[in-house]
Amino acid sequence: MRITKEHIEQAHERIKPFIHQTPVLTCSTINEMAGASLFFKCENFQKIGAFKIRGGMNAVLSLPADKLTKGIATHSSGNHAQAIAYAAKQTGTKAYIVMPDNSPNVKVNAVKGYGAEVTFCEPNQQAREASLQQIVDRTGAEFVHPYNDDRVITGQATCAKELIEEIPQLDVLLAPVGGGGLLSGTALGPHYFSPGTVVYAGEPEGAADAVRSLRSGTIENAPYINTIADGLLTKLGDKTFPIIKEHVKDIFTVTDEEIIAALRLVYERMKIVVEPSCVVPLAAVLKNKSIFSGKRVGLILSGGNVDLGKLAGWFTAA
Amino acid sequence: MRITKEHIEQAHERIKPFIHQTPVLTCSTINEMAGASLFFKCENFQKIGAFKIRGGMNAVLSLPADKLTKGIATHSSGNHAQAIAYAAKQTGTKAYIVMPDNSPNVKVNAVKGYGAEVTFCEPNQQAREASLQQIVDRTGAEFVHPYNDDRVITGQATCAKELIEEIPQLDVLLAPVGGGGLLSGTALGPHYFSPGTVVYAGEPEGAADAVRSLRSGTIENAPYINTIADGLLTKLGDKTFPIIKEHVKDIFTVTDEEIIAALRLVYERMKIVVEPSCVVPLAAVLKNKSIFSGKRVGLILSGGNVDLGKLAGWFTAA
Repeated sequence: MRITKEHIEQAHERIKPFIHQTPVLTCSTINEMAGASLFFKCENFQKIGAFKIRGGMNAVLSLPADKLTKGIATHSSGNHAQAIAYAAKQTGTKAYIVMPDNSPNVKVNAVKGYGAEVTFCEPNQQAREASLQQIVDRTGAEFVHPYNDDRVITGQATCAKELIEEIPQLDVLLAPVGGGGLLSGTALGPHYFSPGTVVYAGEPEGAADAVRSLRSGTIENAPYINTIADGLLTKLGDKTFPIIKEHVKDIFTVTDEEIIAALRLVYERMKIVVEPSCVVPLAAVLKNKSIFSGKRVGLILSGGNVDLGKLAGWFTAA
Repeated sequence: MRITKEHIEQAHERIKPFIHQTPVLTCSTINEMAGASLFFKCENFQKIGAFKIRGGMNAVLSLPADKLTKGIATHSSGNHAQAIAYAAKQTGTKAYIVMPDNSPNVKVNAVKGYGAEVTFCEPNQQAREASLQQIVDRTGAEFVHPYNDDRVITGQATCAKELIEEIPQLDVLLAPVGGGGLLSGTALGPHYFSPGTVVYAGEPEGAADAVRSLRSGTIENAPYINTIADGLLTKLGDKTFPIIKEHVKDIFTVTDEEIIAALRLVYERMKIVVEPSCVVPLAAVLKNKSIFSGKRVGLILSGGNVDLGKLAGWFTAA
């Protein structure tokens, strides 16, 4: 399916009662450092602490009633699991979540806290998909993929739409890229609602599949996986990549040191809690000042679900 | 002097161009835990990262021009030093800050970053006051005490005024108490702008001078000093105590464990960075649920200037 302007508008109306219109923050110190005007769309303040609720909620609310009653299924150890569990609870249906058996307790408990049924599997892609298929076969539940799903991409696009409505005439808009659900949705925002705005992405050097894919024109694996930005480890999908190829101008990579420096800046200067994946676009802007100099730059701060114990290590080491 | 309603209104107009009107946040999870409706006035997002800029700015802006040109002097190792340095910079005058020679570099640099002249002294009250007096004698600079100063108290009162204007009909309002500048100002807010609102304070058990003073009716020392809430170590002054005695109903003490639990809650659920002193009132509300049950409760989140390295230790240990 081709996602249209109307799809995004309908999705926004559909999910509005269930999500926060998150604030847009600015920081004069960071503006001075960047030599640009930065506008941070704070999805760390979103329901479940991340933008993922937008896509999950849109997918679940799009289901016809007879389908909805059979429940929703997905595999995820992160924010998407919480999004689906929350969306199922809000719509009075059942969520079946496949999680790797090495998932942190805090994440398992959050998902269970929304009343979802958790099935553990070995921590690899094959085991995930097999467990999920068993559940779908048994229950008839609808599978909602974490990012490679048009309903999810359409939901994520509402975030850029909100930012554009609040802050007009952005020259540039950036999002982080993992599987590309947020980035493809973010790219559709300007395409339909602010055609003059150029879209870029930030990606960790230690999970640099998307930049490689953009260069080669086909979906590639990362050369290696090693980064603290653990929300961005997945590779692009066949629904997210075509949108990114068409609408994203370039992808900048940043090191973990640059991610930690940006993280520290956001904690110390903006006084908000964000996860490492979240600041990858900011790190990219600070690394490539000449490109953004004097511009009005929107950045999607994707989420704030961080293990405070880990945070400790990063700031102590730095 | 008796601080009047008009003093506070004038102070608010005076400082408005130099401060942020900070947002009021709510959190449904914390509301459920407390069984009450909590409204957090987020002074961690304030200029210099703390409410102290209100009092400092009001004191400096109240000076006649001939006095202002001679500069401002104070002793402080914390947020007040930054407030005075910032206020001096904004008004084009000189700030002389006496800091103990064991002050963290990050705080010294922040003060110097605003162009203030820093004089180091031995880390005790006598050395502080002697150094300060030398500077005042030499320069004719105006001394602005961190809290025991009517201009400072009046400035701090603008924070409660803003909260009351945004969130009417609060049943209760709480602030932390150290030297009592914020608390006395906070108490004057409801007195003049929302007479039905009852004012309480939160104080660390490891710096419990104010509750002791309120019980005995005279200014007392704390039985002992040992708390992570390092913004609340000072004792009341002869200008703050009479206001507190008249307008504050009670002071609740909380342990460091309770402070860390409240801190974790604010980081994990509200996704904002605050300093330990800041969450003492929240810890008090969660410890005394029966008193606040079903009520509309305002809380001043006083600041967000935390050493991220220390934060690490608290969350890792917990």
